[in-house]
Amino acid sequence: MTTTLQDCRTLDAQDPMRSLRELFLLPDGTIYLDGNSLGVMPRSTPARVADVVTREWGTDLIQSWNKNGWFAMPGRVGDKIARLIGAAPGTVVATDSTSINLFKVLSAAINLSTADHPQRKRIVSERSNFPTDLYIAEALCKERGFELVLVEPDEIAAALTPELAILMLTHVNYRTGAMHDMPAVTAAAHAAGALMLWDLAHSAGAVPVDLIGAGADYAVGCGYKYLNGGPGAPAFVWVNPRHTDRFWQPLAGWWGHATPFAFTPDYQPAPGITRYQCGTQPMISLAALDCGVDTLLAAEALGGMAALRTKSLALTDMFISLVDERCQGHGIGLATPLDHAQRGSQVCLTMERPHAPPLRGSLPPEGAPAALGRPSGGGDSVAYAIVQALIARGVVGDYRAGDPSTGSGRTGAKDILRFGFTPLYIGFEDVWNSVEHLKQVLESGEWKRAEFNQKHAVT
Amino acid sequence: MTTTLQDCRTLDAQDPMRSLRELFLLPDGTIYLDGNSLGVMPRSTPARVADVVTREWGTDLIQSWNKNGWFAMPGRVGDKIARLIGAAPGTVVATDSTSINLFKVLSAAINLSTADHPQRKRIVSERSNFPTDLYIAEALCKERGFELVLVEPDEIAAALTPELAILMLTHVNYRTGAMHDMPAVTAAAHAAGALMLWDLAHSAGAVPVDLIGAGADYAVGCGYKYLNGGPGAPAFVWVNPRHTDRFWQPLAGWWGHATPFAFTPDYQPAPGITRYQCGTQPMISLAALDCGVDTLLAAEALGGMAALRTKSLALTDMFISLVDERCQGHGIGLATPLDHAQRGSQVCLTMERPHAPPLRGSLPPEGAPAALGRPSGGGDSVAYAIVQALIARGVVGDYRAGDPSTGSGRTGAKDILRFGFTPLYIGFEDVWNSVEHLKQVLESGEWKRAEFNQKHAVT
Repeated sequence: MTTTLQDCRTLDAQDPMRSLRELFLLPDGTIYLDGNSLGVMPRSTPARVADVVTREWGTDLIQSWNKNGWFAMPGRVGDKIARLIGAAPGTVVATDSTSINLFKVLSAAINLSTADHPQRKRIVSERSNFPTDLYIAEALCKERGFELVLVEPDEIAAALTPELAILMLTHVNYRTGAMHDMPAVTAAAHAAGALMLWDLAHSAGAVPVDLIGAGADYAVGCGYKYLNGGPGAPAFVWVNPRHTDRFWQPLAGWWGHATPFAFTPDYQPAPGITRYQCGTQPMISLAALDCGVDTLLAAEALGGMAALRTKSLALTDMFISLVDERCQGHGIGLATPLDHAQRGSQVCLTMERPHAPPLRGSLPPEGAPAALGRPSGGGDSVAYAIVQALIARGVVGDYRAGDPSTGSGRTGAKDILRFGFTPLYIGFEDVWNSVEHLKQVLESGEWKRAEFNQKHAVT
Repeated sequence: MTTTLQDCRTLDAQDPMRSLRELFLLPDGTIYLDGNSLGVMPRSTPARVADVVTREWGTDLIQSWNKNGWFAMPGRVGDKIARLIGAAPGTVVATDSTSINLFKVLSAAINLSTADHPQRKRIVSERSNFPTDLYIAEALCKERGFELVLVEPDEIAAALTPELAILMLTHVNYRTGAMHDMPAVTAAAHAAGALMLWDLAHSAGAVPVDLIGAGADYAVGCGYKYLNGGPGAPAFVWVNPRHTDRFWQPLAGWWGHATPFAFTPDYQPAPGITRYQCGTQPMISLAALDCGVDTLLAAEALGGMAALRTKSLALTDMFISLVDERCQGHGIGLATPLDHAQRGSQVCLTMERPHAPPLRGSLPPEGAPAALGRPSGGGDSVAYAIVQALIARGVVGDYRAGDPSTGSGRTGAKDILRFGFTPLYIGFEDVWNSVEHLKQVLESGEWKRAEFNQKHAVT
């Protein structure tokens, strides 16, 4: 028996988390399936931001550092994020960017590993990990005499050798939505004598995470995806308390000093996670992040991350089965695992490229802004054109170019149509409608129109 | 002949920059002499921030990265800052914090120096440089096998030895307001075969700066002081184009990649200053910084930084002479040079400590928020109490504790009362009134009241 639009409406009516949608301002005429890239604005954010700007800054000025708690904000927002990722209060700070926080914890992990196991000089990660993680690791390896080894997901177990110092993985893959078994992988890394570092960019606020339960060593994550913190919101960093005071990270700025306002010329790291702060933080953006995190804490009364997870899986199950039922015969494949235990909160579809030019052939002219999600090789991509046609209809997902040169068996080889399902604000009728639009785009062939296929277009 | 209040009013009426004050929302009843710590809010900022939040984020969502130019914002704001510091377009980015940017350029400078002069292993700075600069340098030296040597201002010339790799100075000292001769010091460093790195935290928007004219190598600066970018606004970084493409910095995130949206697993730095970007930037705070920088560009039609400098010196001259005329006999000294060529845009007064307990004796209890500007040793400080009494009267300056243990001849030994004069919005009548309040506080002895002297108070 096939699912109907009415079935989806019934599911929405019965959804115990449905009221959370009212916490957000969803643009009219848009089905927003890109919360995995940039979360939707909470209704509470504009007033909060305005208050920070006009009252806290405009009126209270310098006094706000204490009076309005600015100095403590990274820890206060961090404590809220801690509740979403299985961390204790006082062990998370919201600060800087994910890339910078990764540099801090990877530096600390290298220092710790070198002290305990000087012969271990290898960091292993996935080839299809989010690139900035790989760039930061590459830079640190170059500087510290380590080697970075990149593997496919099914090669991780074999990579847990006596040379391994740090296993660095993103919990939910940004391209495929595939999720690692955090406790099992962490235990395997530890059994091999290595440290375990998790990037929670696509996990925090999307799936239940229990860092302490898993015994992880380090974690970082993003504030502007499922935490709804706004564009470029500060990221977060967690260190297992067993390591925090033992080793240092080199971004040793005054916000990580034991007594920042003593203005002593020598650095004394603060106890605990505070030493992972560096410079002064952008308070306006941090206040917006606070509002975003509050939307997830509002879910606690309705069952919290466990209940959100149940809904998220129901949404992605529904999307997968509706695409399967209604969009056959157009070359669409599924990159996201069907197994619930291996799925994040997004669904990624693949398209065969009818003709695949070399990806790194013709780059955009120097100085030109990068085209977001545009195939950098300028080759025709069916997947890209379909995503553009969907956006023109108000269904916002995104596109990630594949790189066939990496080999067909590899995770990054195929073009991806990426759809994120944020359970806080996406409903079952949204799922139905997005698949209906996809079906119409595929059947009408409207994605073949020039406007959806322009080379080098900045979209 | 002494100056009168009427003289000050006449100066304001004749001030060709007076109209710029209307660009700011100055709180009623406050004379704000702390723009060197946190600049005042421009009137344009709340609407701009609201637009970024509600329209760009709330409505346009992910499309804003291109449609509303988010991705190019660090460079666009950087180009505006470039006009204030004698840098060419395309050579400055507004990004991250000053501490993090310093880490980038100091890393790059270490790499460059090591390539050209492997035997040079020393970084020299001032003992009274802003501490976060010293902490970052200390961390990098520790990791890279360099030594950090701290000297007094009058010892810099003697420190330009063949061992010197990098001279790292803050152009205007945060404690004293003393300004270095940037072209002369840069030339001396180069003559000694060293690289010259400037921190412009108290210079950008406060005094004219000509980085290219001086031939400097690297510079960083702050967005929330004289640039009026709001609390914790992103900072900026400049690299002389002769170095930009030659050496790398290890915070190699995707925003510094040549083709960030090609998502290649290997790092290829972007040409030019873009490679000094790392992770995604906080757009809301960056938009507020853009408004702040615009207040300085608005001064360009009225003579720009040169005219602002003329006014700034007139303001600080007036403050110094009025304190000298009207506040004698209370132990006040002047830490800021009388010579215009050596003065920034702030005036720092010193107070003899009647009794000076050891500064590092009793620190605040662990976990307590640091008391801003509060003497960390908990000792009685006349200067601290006077600043508190002035704030109670609406005259907002700040306090920096001295450390007598460093030796009486050293820059950081004395307690400081710090008054910043931002020429964009401070007038001569403000100067008169602030000195009148200081006079009354000193003569009445009201600073002796318990409320201004509470030990360990968080104020």
